[in-house]
Amino acid sequence: MVSIDLNCDLGESFGSYRMGNDAAILPLITSANIACGFHAGDPSVMRQTVESAILHNVGIGAHPGLPDLQGFGRRELAISAQEAYDLVVYQIGALQAVAKSCGTTVRHVKAHGALYNMAAKSPDLAEAIVSAVKACDSKLIIVGLAGSAWVDAAKKMDMRIAQEVFADRRYEEDGSLTPRSRMDALIEDQQEAVEHVIRMVRDGMVTTRQGTRRPIQADTICIHGDGAHALEFAQAIRERFLKEGIAIERL
Amino acid sequence: MVSIDLNCDLGESFGSYRMGNDAAILPLITSANIACGFHAGDPSVMRQTVESAILHNVGIGAHPGLPDLQGFGRRELAISAQEAYDLVVYQIGALQAVAKSCGTTVRHVKAHGALYNMAAKSPDLAEAIVSAVKACDSKLIIVGLAGSAWVDAAKKMDMRIAQEVFADRRYEEDGSLTPRSRMDALIEDQQEAVEHVIRMVRDGMVTTRQGTRRPIQADTICIHGDGAHALEFAQAIRERFLKEGIAIERL
Amino acid sequence: MVSIDLNCDLGESFGSYRMGNDAAILPLITSANIACGFHAGDPSVMRQTVESAILHNVGIGAHPGLPDLQGFGRRELAISAQEAYDLVVYQIGALQAVAKSCGTTVRHVKAHGALYNMAAKSPDLAEAIVSAVKACDSKLIIVGLAGSAWVDAAKKMDMRIAQEVFADRRYEEDGSLTPRSRMDALIEDQQEAVEHVIRMVRDGMVTTRQGTRRPIQADTICIHGDGAHALEFAQAIRERFLKEGIAIERL
Amino acid sequence: MVSIDLNCDLGESFGSYRMGNDAAILPLITSANIACGFHAGDPSVMRQTVESAILHNVGIGAHPGLPDLQGFGRRELAISAQEAYDLVVYQIGALQAVAKSCGTTVRHVKAHGALYNMAAKSPDLAEAIVSAVKACDSKLIIVGLAGSAWVDAAKKMDMRIAQEVFADRRYEEDGSLTPRSRMDALIEDQQEAVEHVIRMVRDGMVTTRQGTRRPIQADTICIHGDGAHALEFAQAIRERFLKEGIAIERL
Repeated sequence: MVSIDLNCDLGESFGSYRMGNDAAILPLITSANIACGFHAGDPSVMRQTVESAILHNVGIGAHPGLPDLQGFGRRELAISAQEAYDLVVYQIGALQAVAKSCGTTVRHVKAHGALYNMAAKSPDLAEAIVSAVKACDSKLIIVGLAGSAWVDAAKKMDMRIAQEVFADRRYEEDGSLTPRSRMDALIEDQQEAVEHVIRMVRDGMVTTRQGTRRPIQADTICIHGDGAHALEFAQAIRERFLKEGIAIERL
Repeated sequence: MVSIDLNCDLGESFGSYRMGNDAAILPLITSANIACGFHAGDPSVMRQTVESAILHNVGIGAHPGLPDLQGFGRRELAISAQEAYDLVVYQIGALQAVAKSCGTTVRHVKAHGALYNMAAKSPDLAEAIVSAVKACDSKLIIVGLAGSAWVDAAKKMDMRIAQEVFADRRYEEDGSLTPRSRMDALIEDQQEAVEHVIRMVRDGMVTTRQGTRRPIQADTICIHGDGAHALEFAQAIRERFLKEGIAIERL
Repeated sequence: MVSIDLNCDLGESFGSYRMGNDAAILPLITSANIACGFHAGDPSVMRQTVESAILHNVGIGAHPGLPDLQGFGRRELAISAQEAYDLVVYQIGALQAVAKSCGTTVRHVKAHGALYNMAAKSPDLAEAIVSAVKACDSKLIIVGLAGSAWVDAAKKMDMRIAQEVFADRRYEEDGSLTPRSRMDALIEDQQEAVEHVIRMVRDGMVTTRQGTRRPIQADTICIHGDGAHALEFAQAIRERFLKEGIAIERL
Repeated sequence: MVSIDLNCDLGESFGSYRMGNDAAILPLITSANIACGFHAGDPSVMRQTVESAILHNVGIGAHPGLPDLQGFGRRELAISAQEAYDLVVYQIGALQAVAKSCGTTVRHVKAHGALYNMAAKSPDLAEAIVSAVKACDSKLIIVGLAGSAWVDAAKKMDMRIAQEVFADRRYEEDGSLTPRSRMDALIEDQQEAVEHVIRMVRDGMVTTRQGTRRPIQADTICIHGDGAHALEFAQAIRERFLKEGIAIERL
């Protein structure tokens, strides 16, 4: 039976600053990507988030990012592959200890923001990060953009990869995401987005912006935790999956 | 046979900033307290320091500190016991992953600077930190000021404690360190400092500033890594221990 | 005619993190204390906040804090008087340039959180900070806790001081604020708080927790920018002042 | 008479971390670019550096950088022009206040590291930064790479520009610096470097890596503050300028 994981970025608050709507999104997802203190999150927020994820039986993942709290890890920073390796080991380790202190373990790793995007296009960076993940725990699952350098790097190093697709993003003929600079990068109609993601998960095919169809592997879907319609959309996706007989199961 | 550990703070560089003289001090010590990125150190420095410590067969310890790079973790910050717990778990975890990625493990934990001093006087803080250490790995050894709240907290939680003494610090009648605000807080004569520390290690007794003698347990000695005479002093202590038939062994 | 200033902390967002409800509170106040990037705020938030303050003809003030974003500047940090001087000069200067780039000037300075509270009790710290303010611009107005070390320091250095009172805080017989550790530290009934502040402004007297009355000078009232009833309370205070014939005017 | 300015980055220490050799280089230069707390420096280091610069009658300049202490501002960070504007205003303002508190004023602004290099190639970024400088004080002198976008931006905005040349860097036919990725990017022979810079200053011509000659305007030379031969080289340049009858004068 086909199954799918729903992942969402969590634990993005910092000190007195609140971000996201973790309590509301937790019942709707199966995997949590927990910020590790570099682009967002702090040690106390991490512990609280792990505790909440346990209560909802959600898989715990590390969400390492660039050291840029002000830019929320979304601004590209020209780090070397070695620097990427080092900061990913550090952040995973921090969350592993938090998880252990709460009686659980980290199951997956998904890089955040610019780090995720940079590695998707750079085999060197992707391999450095996958190698950092493996050095922490060879059983960790890498979550990476479907069809990107993440997938090649993980396979090369014998690490398990969960290919990620986006319900609300359009795809190009070559399988890459339509750049956000284009007006039609986002699929804003909820019904269209649901159909888009169902085709990827059920049929293993994506209809590109150019109208062609190409194969895509969809192991996990990125669910947004905030925004006006985030919860409603997550709910719509869940209902449609159930109707299609697709199980929603964590990685 | 009596044995003693010599510990030193290492890995205090940060980015382009160099601090300490790690290469020179490593051959002289048995345990390294490695900064974990809050008061000093960064992910790359941590990895390099663990690699160096392995080469010298020096025991690897986490050296968690307050989040105050500018103040080098030496300025008291009014954190709660829960905050202390959380930031210690985080920092130990980060170093554990670095150690694992280098093929080794963290053996001990010594808090840094103001965090060490605050906990030495506060049972609540000491218990929160010891409990954080235990949550990370119940086999970790706590390094804490001899006779302080660190010792009580570790014993209360069934954690192994290594009591730390200072060769260059004078002690008060009640067993506390003479406050640095007093002119005679430091023992500046090298020969006197060596005798002072030998008495503590060999005889289990310390001669206080007031001239009295009181029992003290000395499991590890804090060795300074920089300063004009640091290396010379470390060498002098080592030679004297060997002459006394006291083994220098890591925790 | 008696007049009063209403001040509020603004510009406390940071990067992607939003805090406070600046747009809603700006029409109700006469002076804005703008965070300067240490405990909150960033260069872009500062510019946006100055622009908004100009639109509402609100007096612009610097709100320097401790370098502790995670703790929001509320945790005491053991800085020296010289360090306090230096970090206050830095933060005021940063806001002065932002203000100049927007065509306006900084009129007052109110320290934030733990820095404000520490200086209220420490003449050394208060004098260091007042002296930093004077070094930036001798025409700046210091906002400090009524009757505290702030007032003495400002007078000693010939700087103009605006004494601040709190509508929702109870006072002790000696004029200090009732510590928050006491259950009755806050005046939670809105009507009672309005009466409390009116007595301070109109009569120059405060009724203490012990039931005694003592003189107090009230030049400016601290208005909270968030919380369920903040706007409603600010509105209630404004209406009562107008009814009493007390003008609401900026410093 | 031809004159030249010698500028050097100063005040790059941070907290307990020392960097550079400010005391030794100050007697040899005419303009100091003082780090402003983002890529290096802190409020106390800034004050101490301004005080030292005053003693040596060296012109005081702001040296704003990217918010990346760990990377020392040398790693490109994808900031927007608006973000660049904001963080430059902030940093200049901070130094202006420090300078004022010491009884002097900021005379020039030179961006640091990656920010300098990014703007040299990006008219948008250069204009945003020049416009930030102008907003702080229209009499400030911009120091920018000779022949780069810095020069165009400054001229466009009617700001005074001092064109900077490098004694130890080779130039390409198009006037750009030879990329450091090339083996021959640096001129390592001291005598060759002195001749190289003398030709630029005296003759207004640079001999490129390709052997061609092209005009270049040299108003200020970047002097390095650390490294084995920095002081010796600065001394050699000074002597040669005096021999050539070229005055060494600050901007």
